Amino acid sequence: MLTNPRSDRVKAVRALSRRSVRSRTGEFLAEGPQAVREAVVHRPDLVRDVYVTPEAAERHTDIVDAARAARLWVHDVSPEVLAAMCDTESPQGIAAVCRVLDVSLAAALADLPPDAIVCVLTNVRDPGNAGTVIRGADAAGADAVIVSDASVDVYNNKVVRSTVGSLWHLPIATGVPVPVILSALRERGITLLAADGAGQTLLHDVDLGRPHAWVMGNEAWGLEPEVREACDEVVRVPIYGHAESLNLAMAATVCLYASAEARRRRR
Amino acid sequence: MLTNPRSDRVKAVRALSRRSVRSRTGEFLAEGPQAVREAVVHRPDLVRDVYVTPEAAERHTDIVDAARAARLWVHDVSPEVLAAMCDTESPQGIAAVCRVLDVSLAAALADLPPDAIVCVLTNVRDPGNAGTVIRGADAAGADAVIVSDASVDVYNNKVVRSTVGSLWHLPIATGVPVPVILSALRERGITLLAADGAGQTLLHDVDLGRPHAWVMGNEAWGLEPEVREACDEVVRVPIYGHAESLNLAMAATVCLYASAEARRRRR
Repeated sequence: MLTNPRSDRVKAVRALSRRSVRSRTGEFLAEGPQAVREAVVHRPDLVRDVYVTPEAAERHTDIVDAARAARLWVHDVSPEVLAAMCDTESPQGIAAVCRVLDVSLAAALADLPPDAIVCVLTNVRDPGNAGTVIRGADAAGADAVIVSDASVDVYNNKVVRSTVGSLWHLPIATGVPVPVILSALRERGITLLAADGAGQTLLHDVDLGRPHAWVMGNEAWGLEPEVREACDEVVRVPIYGHAESLNLAMAATVCLYASAEARRRRR
Repeated sequence: MLTNPRSDRVKAVRALSRRSVRSRTGEFLAEGPQAVREAVVHRPDLVRDVYVTPEAAERHTDIVDAARAARLWVHDVSPEVLAAMCDTESPQGIAAVCRVLDVSLAAALADLPPDAIVCVLTNVRDPGNAGTVIRGADAAGADAVIVSDASVDVYNNKVVRSTVGSLWHLPIATGVPVPVILSALRERGITLLAADGAGQTLLHDVDLGRPHAWVMGNEAWGLEPEVREACDEVVRVPIYGHAESLNLAMAATVCLYASAEARRRRR
């Protein structure tokens, strides 16, 4: 049992809360049972160490069993050690050091089906919004998520938590400049749909029968004009009441579910 | 100009951050330009006092002009006074004491159109989720929002902020026991649709041509079994990928937009 919250190992794990350390090591910390479970079940190949308190090991036998079955290192730690490792205030007794899982843009777009749905995040800065959009993309059955270079780091603990495991569920490319993303999608014959409250086309009028990508902008100021112009259509979710707008995560989820519903009807 | 952050008036405004004081006085504080603008524009009859710093008065002349045109009291205050009044860390220089705007359940349901869409929140505790659902209901053109007695107070500052003004846009009844809500809706011939990840009916299979209410549960544990059973159908948003679920605000928005889209096609 690891009991010293000031040990080098604990410090090394805690350091993963810094983006620079994540970049250098290629590792991040998944905190809490939901994230650890998804990592262990979906991508055990990317899990390096699982840390668990005795109490959490008893409560989450499924996670510990799955980790042991996958021959992962499961370390018993005291609650003080776990708290010292984690960024979250109440990590619920379990965390895992994981290797980063993003793939190259080419790899993320390699196995798209002919009726692909792709979700592109440009300049999204708020961790909760970014994570919720990734979760929504997963739920709607999107085939890939691409996150632009000027966006929040997807391995930020708040992003990881907000994805509720979806981070491990679908191909994600990160750190790509927006023009590179758009031209790669265009080359593959994917229609670019900018989601924007000022769009000319209403969501229910857009043809979602083509392979397409939803291009989402910053949560406060939306899409940059040059990104909007580089897209094939600028689409807005209709507002039927008096609300000025939807927030990013809501608009993204409504758009992605419109795509999912169009695909369901065709298939 | 009010400059004393320790004056009785400032203390009385600040006390509105407590639910008990809001209940007793029937007032709450709308903080920030977006909330104050919507209050002043949509329901000036409910605004008692507007407090604004010189800087904010210059930046938001539209709000100050609208408030003066509506013959509201606009008080100049120092930034220190505004900060002492507000719960928000950066209230952006403007706040308004408003009378509560909820109506009785009967009043909220009095003017429903024949193809009504109603949103019912039961036991929703998280302010951000509650506010976002109210915003989504407004955006989707819902005709009324009913909030059950065991839910977060809609005048909680975080709820007010998350609604981004929608609080003032549609009839809201609060504090009603769930069985009372359900039987009132049923009496008016409104179909009760429980939104639940374990629902038997998929969203795209449900008949949204009837007047109906979406009944939403707590963000963590969902709907209570007896509430689910009291509804006509238990409906789930289909999950196409590997995500375990959508969060409350996302699920509510997808359901409400499905209703809005069905209504648009009929009308």
